[in-house]
Amino acid sequence: MEERLILTPKEEIENRIFSLKVLMEEKGLDCAFFHYKVDYYYLSGTMQDAVLYVPLYEEPVLFVKREIERAKRESPLKNVVWTKSFRDITEYVSPAKKVGLQIDVLPYREVQRLLGELKNPEIFDSSSLVKELRRKKSAFEIMLMREAAKIQKKVYEYVPLILKEGMTEIELGGHLEAYAKTLGHEGILRMRSLNYEPYSWHILSGESGSVVGYAESPMAGFGLSPAFPVGASFKKIRRGEPVLVDFGVCYYGYHVDQTRIFAIGEIPKKFVDAYEISKEIERRVIDMILKGLKSGEIFELAKRIADRYGYSEYYLGYEPYKVKFLGHGVGLELSELPYIAEKHDYPIEEGSIIAIEPKFVFPGEGACGIEDTFLYQDGKVIPLTESDDGIILL
Amino acid sequence: MEERLILTPKEEIENRIFSLKVLMEEKGLDCAFFHYKVDYYYLSGTMQDAVLYVPLYEEPVLFVKREIERAKRESPLKNVVWTKSFRDITEYVSPAKKVGLQIDVLPYREVQRLLGELKNPEIFDSSSLVKELRRKKSAFEIMLMREAAKIQKKVYEYVPLILKEGMTEIELGGHLEAYAKTLGHEGILRMRSLNYEPYSWHILSGESGSVVGYAESPMAGFGLSPAFPVGASFKKIRRGEPVLVDFGVCYYGYHVDQTRIFAIGEIPKKFVDAYEISKEIERRVIDMILKGLKSGEIFELAKRIADRYGYSEYYLGYEPYKVKFLGHGVGLELSELPYIAEKHDYPIEEGSIIAIEPKFVFPGEGACGIEDTFLYQDGKVIPLTESDDGIILL
Repeated sequence: MEERLILTPKEEIENRIFSLKVLMEEKGLDCAFFHYKVDYYYLSGTMQDAVLYVPLYEEPVLFVKREIERAKRESPLKNVVWTKSFRDITEYVSPAKKVGLQIDVLPYREVQRLLGELKNPEIFDSSSLVKELRRKKSAFEIMLMREAAKIQKKVYEYVPLILKEGMTEIELGGHLEAYAKTLGHEGILRMRSLNYEPYSWHILSGESGSVVGYAESPMAGFGLSPAFPVGASFKKIRRGEPVLVDFGVCYYGYHVDQTRIFAIGEIPKKFVDAYEISKEIERRVIDMILKGLKSGEIFELAKRIADRYGYSEYYLGYEPYKVKFLGHGVGLELSELPYIAEKHDYPIEEGSIIAIEPKFVFPGEGACGIEDTFLYQDGKVIPLTESDDGIILL
Repeated sequence: MEERLILTPKEEIENRIFSLKVLMEEKGLDCAFFHYKVDYYYLSGTMQDAVLYVPLYEEPVLFVKREIERAKRESPLKNVVWTKSFRDITEYVSPAKKVGLQIDVLPYREVQRLLGELKNPEIFDSSSLVKELRRKKSAFEIMLMREAAKIQKKVYEYVPLILKEGMTEIELGGHLEAYAKTLGHEGILRMRSLNYEPYSWHILSGESGSVVGYAESPMAGFGLSPAFPVGASFKKIRRGEPVLVDFGVCYYGYHVDQTRIFAIGEIPKKFVDAYEISKEIERRVIDMILKGLKSGEIFELAKRIADRYGYSEYYLGYEPYKVKFLGHGVGLELSELPYIAEKHDYPIEEGSIIAIEPKFVFPGEGACGIEDTFLYQDGKVIPLTESDDGIILL
């Protein structure tokens, strides 16, 4: 067990807390609370059941409800203290006029209770601060994401070894997931959403690739039932149709995202053409990132490439289900800042790790396209995902 | 695809909406909103991206953001209407003085916005109403849960076919999950929690069974990293130790929960004894449910059985990590009403489906115990889960 355990270094946590305090000071916050585990993991190094309290001019305190020893082992913070109930922690909090709370995810009832106990301070969305920090990745984070990408590469190499005509999408998805877990994939992908549950088995063959659903994605798939109506289904994989494998990997909490197309036998020319266009768009987006274009400009210019080839009807989905993004940051959540999306008014900065996914969807027929996760660093945009970038024909 | 699709019957949805309105009327609500998908699925039959609006004296309206055609196919509600954004729906809402909102799960920011648009009505937790309704299962729900239990039985029969000395916990977990998915298991388990993500691969061997974590459970396991510190790990399964397999199955959104103990070769007597006591407690709890005892009384009396055998130190975990519940309702969430738990002041009523899990944890050594999901109906408490109830020795 232990030899595999990588802990977040003390210096890393100290840097993150310091950067957070700079933002808190700018916003005039006296203190901030972090209740959402992805964020207190980022700021503390542990995901044990906890609430992180960060006063502007004092040491942070991590209140832990159950396994304090694990939390102490994992977190380099000085103050990791046990609490019987998170209802008690406000007793330890200094009076504050303006308080950061994660109001984008914390339920209303809980915030109302907290506000009462804190004597109704002014509140500010503390999630916005940590989202901003998480936008740029450290060397430690990049190292973990490279490891995640290595796992992903092996998973994609495993596909042609097991994919067979007549196999169901979910059978393929299950096998890939079982294999990925033996390599360190954590199984659950994360996204801050009340209702959207990301998952690894986004395996869509033929017409499944054109089925839209609740995911804000060009394609959703049938899923297994109306109660889980996304991703792989019981549809059998046939000869001559594109099999879209969008298999996210999560390692030590860090995601990488990638899509490749597999097929048993040749697939219709339109899919091959769409795939080539999607590769061209991916390359051109990288050029535009390097030139410092703004996110929204990149989004618009990329669309023109699809237009020029006469494929705009299918680009990023079909009407009225087209999506308004072409890329998304990746890190402790599958989708985070920065985005390459309509009306987003910022350039993609160095230190970002971003998935680019210019996909095409043909109604009733299927989906095709590439996706890779890229690191922008030292004046270069390089892929973390390193699978062969062609359509993989079996 | 289609032949597998079971849709929620119209009558079922009508009954649920009617029962909801009875509760709304009791609480003096003019209308109620359901934003959380598990609950609007229960009330509408679809999980497409939607918000359900239920006015007391009018027909409910399901506002759907993306795939309206799928939602219409799945939901028998009369009014299933497309909306570009959920921000627009308040325009269609009649003025109301007292409004039900799911304030236990809906983020603060979203509720604040809604309250502004609804002109600051009095609010009431609409989740409490649907939780109450979901407490008793209909014939349709019982049918789906029986199907889930059949899948679970096959998964447990698969364990001895693949379990080998030296296999890691996560390898076993991954294979079981892949197999379960081919049978219809949906992979993701659900629980209304900001931070707790349930999962199927709760496979704990030897000392892993005594590792506590963020889950409100007697045992959590090492997990794969500090970022996912629960469930199966890279620990190898050894001869002569108990292997606890707590593999939840989800079928058409309905969960069933079960635990069995497997072992390669003989295991120490204390585990065998603990297992027998746990079976006795399970039987006695059923008697107490049938006698109409209150939940909290059942909890206390069950504890005395462990005491009498001299095993109280290990019962439901060890101090300070003992849990205060012995059973939980199961349905569209893995854990829901009713509970068999400390200080819960209600009898278990007919129509309930409840998992009973009297487990023992020996610090540093492992965990042992049984869990089954039972249906209380027609004066009988019968198991849905039907796996062999002994320790399975290989």
